[in-house]
Amino acid sequence: MTVADLFIDLRSDTVTRPTAGMREAMATAEVGDDVYGEDPTVNALEAEVAALFGHEAALFCPSGSMANQIALQLVVPPGAELLCDADAHVITYEMGAAAAYGGITSRTWPAVGAEIAPDVVAGMVRPDGYWTVPTRAIAVEQTHNRGGGGVIPLDTLRALREVADAAQAALHCDGARIWHAHVADGVPLAGYGALFDTLSVCLSKGLGAPVGSLVVGSAERIDRARAIRKRMGGGLRQAGILAAAGRYALAHHVDRLAEDHAKAARLAEAIAPFGVLAGVARTNLVPLDLTKASLDAPSLAAAARADGVLISVLGPRTARLVTHLDVTDDAVDQAATVLARVLRR
Amino acid sequence: MTVADLFIDLRSDTVTRPTAGMREAMATAEVGDDVYGEDPTVNALEAEVAALFGHEAALFCPSGSMANQIALQLVVPPGAELLCDADAHVITYEMGAAAAYGGITSRTWPAVGAEIAPDVVAGMVRPDGYWTVPTRAIAVEQTHNRGGGGVIPLDTLRALREVADAAQAALHCDGARIWHAHVADGVPLAGYGALFDTLSVCLSKGLGAPVGSLVVGSAERIDRARAIRKRMGGGLRQAGILAAAGRYALAHHVDRLAEDHAKAARLAEAIAPFGVLAGVARTNLVPLDLTKASLDAPSLAAAARADGVLISVLGPRTARLVTHLDVTDDAVDQAATVLARVLRR
Amino acid sequence: MTVADLFIDLRSDTVTRPTAGMREAMATAEVGDDVYGEDPTVNALEAEVAALFGHEAALFCPSGSMANQIALQLVVPPGAELLCDADAHVITYEMGAAAAYGGITSRTWPAVGAEIAPDVVAGMVRPDGYWTVPTRAIAVEQTHNRGGGGVIPLDTLRALREVADAAQAALHCDGARIWHAHVADGVPLAGYGALFDTLSVCLSKGLGAPVGSLVVGSAERIDRARAIRKRMGGGLRQAGILAAAGRYALAHHVDRLAEDHAKAARLAEAIAPFGVLAGVARTNLVPLDLTKASLDAPSLAAAARADGVLISVLGPRTARLVTHLDVTDDAVDQAATVLARVLRR
Amino acid sequence: MTVADLFIDLRSDTVTRPTAGMREAMATAEVGDDVYGEDPTVNALEAEVAALFGHEAALFCPSGSMANQIALQLVVPPGAELLCDADAHVITYEMGAAAAYGGITSRTWPAVGAEIAPDVVAGMVRPDGYWTVPTRAIAVEQTHNRGGGGVIPLDTLRALREVADAAQAALHCDGARIWHAHVADGVPLAGYGALFDTLSVCLSKGLGAPVGSLVVGSAERIDRARAIRKRMGGGLRQAGILAAAGRYALAHHVDRLAEDHAKAARLAEAIAPFGVLAGVARTNLVPLDLTKASLDAPSLAAAARADGVLISVLGPRTARLVTHLDVTDDAVDQAATVLARVLRR
Repeated sequence: MTVADLFIDLRSDTVTRPTAGMREAMATAEVGDDVYGEDPTVNALEAEVAALFGHEAALFCPSGSMANQIALQLVVPPGAELLCDADAHVITYEMGAAAAYGGITSRTWPAVGAEIAPDVVAGMVRPDGYWTVPTRAIAVEQTHNRGGGGVIPLDTLRALREVADAAQAALHCDGARIWHAHVADGVPLAGYGALFDTLSVCLSKGLGAPVGSLVVGSAERIDRARAIRKRMGGGLRQAGILAAAGRYALAHHVDRLAEDHAKAARLAEAIAPFGVLAGVARTNLVPLDLTKASLDAPSLAAAARADGVLISVLGPRTARLVTHLDVTDDAVDQAATVLARVLRR
Repeated sequence: MTVADLFIDLRSDTVTRPTAGMREAMATAEVGDDVYGEDPTVNALEAEVAALFGHEAALFCPSGSMANQIALQLVVPPGAELLCDADAHVITYEMGAAAAYGGITSRTWPAVGAEIAPDVVAGMVRPDGYWTVPTRAIAVEQTHNRGGGGVIPLDTLRALREVADAAQAALHCDGARIWHAHVADGVPLAGYGALFDTLSVCLSKGLGAPVGSLVVGSAERIDRARAIRKRMGGGLRQAGILAAAGRYALAHHVDRLAEDHAKAARLAEAIAPFGVLAGVARTNLVPLDLTKASLDAPSLAAAARADGVLISVLGPRTARLVTHLDVTDDAVDQAATVLARVLRR
Repeated sequence: MTVADLFIDLRSDTVTRPTAGMREAMATAEVGDDVYGEDPTVNALEAEVAALFGHEAALFCPSGSMANQIALQLVVPPGAELLCDADAHVITYEMGAAAAYGGITSRTWPAVGAEIAPDVVAGMVRPDGYWTVPTRAIAVEQTHNRGGGGVIPLDTLRALREVADAAQAALHCDGARIWHAHVADGVPLAGYGALFDTLSVCLSKGLGAPVGSLVVGSAERIDRARAIRKRMGGGLRQAGILAAAGRYALAHHVDRLAEDHAKAARLAEAIAPFGVLAGVARTNLVPLDLTKASLDAPSLAAAARADGVLISVLGPRTARLVTHLDVTDDAVDQAATVLARVLRR
Repeated sequence: MTVADLFIDLRSDTVTRPTAGMREAMATAEVGDDVYGEDPTVNALEAEVAALFGHEAALFCPSGSMANQIALQLVVPPGAELLCDADAHVITYEMGAAAAYGGITSRTWPAVGAEIAPDVVAGMVRPDGYWTVPTRAIAVEQTHNRGGGGVIPLDTLRALREVADAAQAALHCDGARIWHAHVADGVPLAGYGALFDTLSVCLSKGLGAPVGSLVVGSAERIDRARAIRKRMGGGLRQAGILAAAGRYALAHHVDRLAEDHAKAARLAEAIAPFGVLAGVARTNLVPLDLTKASLDAPSLAAAARADGVLISVLGPRTARLVTHLDVTDDAVDQAATVLARVLRR
C-alpha cells in the first residue's frame, strides 16, 4: 500500500505518478549516453523546450533546484549579488546552494508573492564597483509557490525587465509552474521567454513527469551550464528514459492544467466560509492562513490526515492545498468535505 | 602634500591619523609574535576590550570587515542563513564575503537604518529542518552607517534578543561605531555587550587608531575565531605596534566622541535650510538626501571638493558628511560655509 | 541512426542501454515521491545496496559524481583535507566540486593506479591542530579508472584501513566499478564494505542501468547525505523508475561481468603484439600506452572510428578500450581486427 | 618578561622585533587612508617592491598567507586546479583557504623541497576541457620552508617557466624568504621576478618588520587583487605605519641575511656529529631529522626549552632551527652547546 492508495494527496503536485501513456513512452524511448551528448530523446526534449520559450538552447536537469542553481551560477559570479523576494524558492527551499556553492549574496524584497513593485526592486539595485557588492541578477517565481500560486502580471514582468536592463543585470525566472501562469493568463510561453535571460521549467510538478527540469537560455550560457551541471553531479547517462516522459507531458499535460485550476477554485470556495483563505486561488495552489482559525497548521494537517487527506504545512499558521493530475473531481469534493468538517469544529 | 593637508575631509572617520601621543605609544610598544599568542600588548588589548563588553574573550583583527566576517562564520554554518537589513555593511561593503567565503545565505528586511521593527524580523525567521534554510543569526549595526549614524534604542535591541532566543539564533552586532551609540545614549558598553552573542568593534574609525578591529564573544567562539582569522589571512606577527594605538585610543578617544557629535549637529544645522537632511544627525554622521536638491550627489561632491571640502557619495542622490578627530571646530564652520554656498546655487 | 547502431562502442561502459527486461522493470515500477521518502522502489534499492555492503544505509543519487561528492562532503569539512592519488576520479573528472563546493583541500600521492603503497599514504597524513590543514579522509578507487581497471588487493585495503584509523580519518571508496573487483578477485561486497566508512557504487556503468549511483554508509551519515543531495540538486521525485532498473541490474548483471573481463582479455591479447598495452587487463578496461607506437591517441581513435570502432582518448599518448554489456563476442573480434590493422600500419 | 627575554628563540624568523631604527621610521611615517589609496608610505613601498622584482605593481597585505591566497585566487578560478608540492606552505599552513575560499583543487608532487623535477610537474598538467579539471597554476616556494630552507636553482625555475608556458598556466612564487635565496645564490630579485606571473614576498620574517607581505604582479592583476584583499578583510587604513617598517627593512635588512645564513651553518656544524641534520643548511633554516636519534621532536624541544632554547617541532621526528635578526652570534653558540648536550644524552 503506497501513500497514493491510502490518501487524497494535496501536499504538492510533485507527488503525481506517471500515467500509462507516459510509462509506455519511457519503455520505448530511444536512448544514448547524454554525457557524450548522444541521447536522441534528451536532445529532442531540449530543442523542443528551447523553441517553446523562444531561446537558443535548454539543458535537462534531474531537479528544479539544480536547474535554478545552475542558472544563478551562470548569471551571478561569486562575490556578486542576487535580488529576489524573501520567500523565493531559490533561497528558501534549495538548501542555501546559491551561497554555499555559488558564493552568491542575496538581498530580498519583502515577501509579497506575485505582487511585486518594480520600483522597490529598482531602488535596491547596487552598481558595479570597488565599494559595494554589485547586483548581477534579479529572480522572480512564476507562479509563486509561497505566494499561493499567484501569477505575476505581464506588465510587472515588463517593468522588471526594464529594471534589469537599467542595472545591466540578468533577469531569471524560476518557472517551475510557468505552465500554470501560461494557462491562467493566456500568455504564450514564448512571451514569457522573451522577457528573461534564463528560466528554469519543471516537468515533474504539474506536468506529471517523474523526474526532470530544464534550464533555458542562450547557446553560450547553456554551454557553460553543461559544465556546471557536471560539477553539481547532474550529468546523467541514458536520461532519455526520463526525457521521454517529459516530452509526453509537454504533449498531453499542459492544456489540462486548466482542470487543476478549476479544482483548486472549487476547493477554495468550499473552505472560504471558514475565513482561512490567504488570497485568491488563481492556479493550482490554495494558500491557507490559519491566524484566526481555531487550530494551527500542524493540527489541521493531522486532523485531515486522520480523515484521509494530506495537506502541506508551511509555517505554524500557514498551510497549502495543491491540485494536480492525480486528484480526481471526486477526490476534490471528498477533500473539501473533510476540510470543512475539520475547520468547523 | 597629502589629502589631509589640502582638504577638510568629511568623507569618513576612517581618515583620521594617529596623534602624537598615539604615535609615542606605538613607538614604545612591547611586542611579540601574536601568531604564537605572545604579543603582550595585543593580549592586553584583547583582555581590555572583552572586559569592556562583559564577554570572555576578544580577538584583534586587521579590519572591521574581517572582524564581522569572522563573527558571521562563527555563528552561521555554510548553507544556513543570516537575517539583516538590506543596507547592512556586512552584506553591502564587505565584497560579498559572507556568501563567497562563508557560504551564508542572507535574507534582508527593508533598509530602515536604526528603526528596526522586531516583529518584522521575527516574522522572517525560518526554522531548522530538512526543507528550508534555517535562520542561524540576526545582525544589526550600531550605529547604522547607511542609516545616517542612527542609534538603535536599547528597547529595540532587547526585543531583538528575544526574537533571537526564540529562534535559537545568534545575535551579532556590527559595532564599528558602537562607541558613538554608547556616548550618544549613555548606555554602558557592557549593557550592549550583554545583548549580543558576538560583536565587532573598530579602533580605526571614530577612535582614531590607524588599523584594527576586534571580534568579541565567548572563549569557545574566540578560540575558533583564531583559526578562521588565520584562514582569512589575518594572523599578524608583532601586532602590538597596532594594539598599542588601540589601547591609547580606548583610553583617550572614547569620551571625546561627544565633540564629534556636536560638530555633526552644527553641520546639520547649517545645511538644514536647504532641505537636504535625511533624518536627524544624532552621532557623527550627517546623511544627505538630494532628491529635491538642484544638484545630485556627484555634483555636490565635485563642487565641494573644488572649494576644499571632501564628502562621500553613497548613491546618485545620497551623500554623507562625517565628523571626526581630525576635523577642528574651525574646519566644521568652513565646511558648513562651503556646503551652504554650493547648495544655495 | 544512433551511435550504437553505427559503431562498436568501446569508449566506456557508461554507454550501455537498458535491456528489454530492464525496460519492463522500469515500465511496471511502483513509485512515489522520493523527496518525501515515499518511493517504495527507491527505498527497496537503498535497503538492498546497504545490505550488500553490510552498512546501515544507502542513498540513491543521479550520478556517480554526486555520490562521491556527497560522501566527501560528509567526511571532510571545509578547510580540511583529503588524500588521494593524483589520478583519482574524484579530483580529475568531477569538475573540481570537492574544492569548489566542499572547500576541501586535496593532497595527492603519485598516480600508481591500484598499486598503492600504504606507508607512502601514512607518511602524508597531517594531524589536527591550529597550524596545519588536518587530514580527514583518504579516498581510493576500486577498480581504478585511469589505472586501467586495476584491482586494489584486499591486503592493501586492510593496510589503508589501519592508516586511516591511526589518522582518525575516514576511508572512502569510489566504487563505481567495485562490482568488477568483486568478480575479479572473488571478494564479497560486504568484505569491501567492512573496510570503508563511505562508498559510492554505480548502477549505470558495468551494470547497465540507465541512471543512478548510491552512496553507502552509516545511518547518521546517510541522513546528513540526504540534505547535501538536496543542496546539490539531487532530490528526485518518482525516482523509482530508475531504481527499478538498478534493482534489475543488481539481480541480473553482476555475475555476468566475468564475460566483460574475458572480452577485455581477448582484446588485450589481440593488440599485445603491438607493444601498446599499459599493464594487464584484469577487469573490463584495456589501457593503452602509445608512447612507442607510430600514431598518437587521437590518431588511433580517428582511424578506428573510420573503421567503425570507438575508443577513448585519455591523453596525447594514452587511450582506453572498455568492454560491457552491449559489446558482443563478435564485436570484440571485429574491434580487435580493426585495431590490429590500424596499429600495424 | 617576554618570551624574547627568557629564551634564545630559534622557532622561526617571524619572532623578530622591530629595531630602534625601524621603530623610529614607524613613529614618523607619513600616513593616509589606504582603502582610498591615499597612504603615501604604502604607495611608496608598493612601487619600490614592484620595481625590485621588475613587475608593474604590488599590493601590501597584512600577512604572507593573505598575499599567497590573493595570488592564487587571481590565477586559478573556482573549479580549476593548482599544482604544487605536497609540503607547500600554501596548502599546508594557510588553513585550507585555497579550497575553502578559492574553490581551488590542488594536486601535489611528492615533498622534495627545493629539488623539483620539472618533467614530473609537466607530466601532471591537465588540459582545459569539459572532461577534466584544468591546471591553471603551478606554485613553488623560494626558499622552501618544510624543505629546510633549500634554494630552488635558477635552471629549475626556468624549466618550470617553460612547463607553465606550455600548459598556459600561471607560475606563482611563494617568496616569503625569496630574499634569502637572492643572498644565497646571488640571483637578482628581478631575475626571479622575470620568471613568475605572481609572487608573494614577506617583510616580517627574515627582514624583521613587525607586519606585512606584498603580492607582486601585473597592473591588471594587482587591480583585481585589491578587491580580493578587501573580501579577505585585508583593507587597512593608515597602513603606512607598517609600510614604513617595511621600507626600513628593505633598506637595511636584506644584505645582512648572509649573517643569518652563516649562523645557521654554524649551528648545523655543531650538531652534525649527532646525525640529525636533514640536508645542508644553505640559508637560515636548519632542518632536523630525528628518526635515528634517541629522542623524538617534542622531547628534544622540551629539553632544549628547559635549558633556555626554543625550537620548532614540525612532526613526530622532524624539527627546525631558524636563525634571524634577533639571534646574536653568542646566542648561536649557546644554543649549539645546549642542543649538543641534549642530543648527546
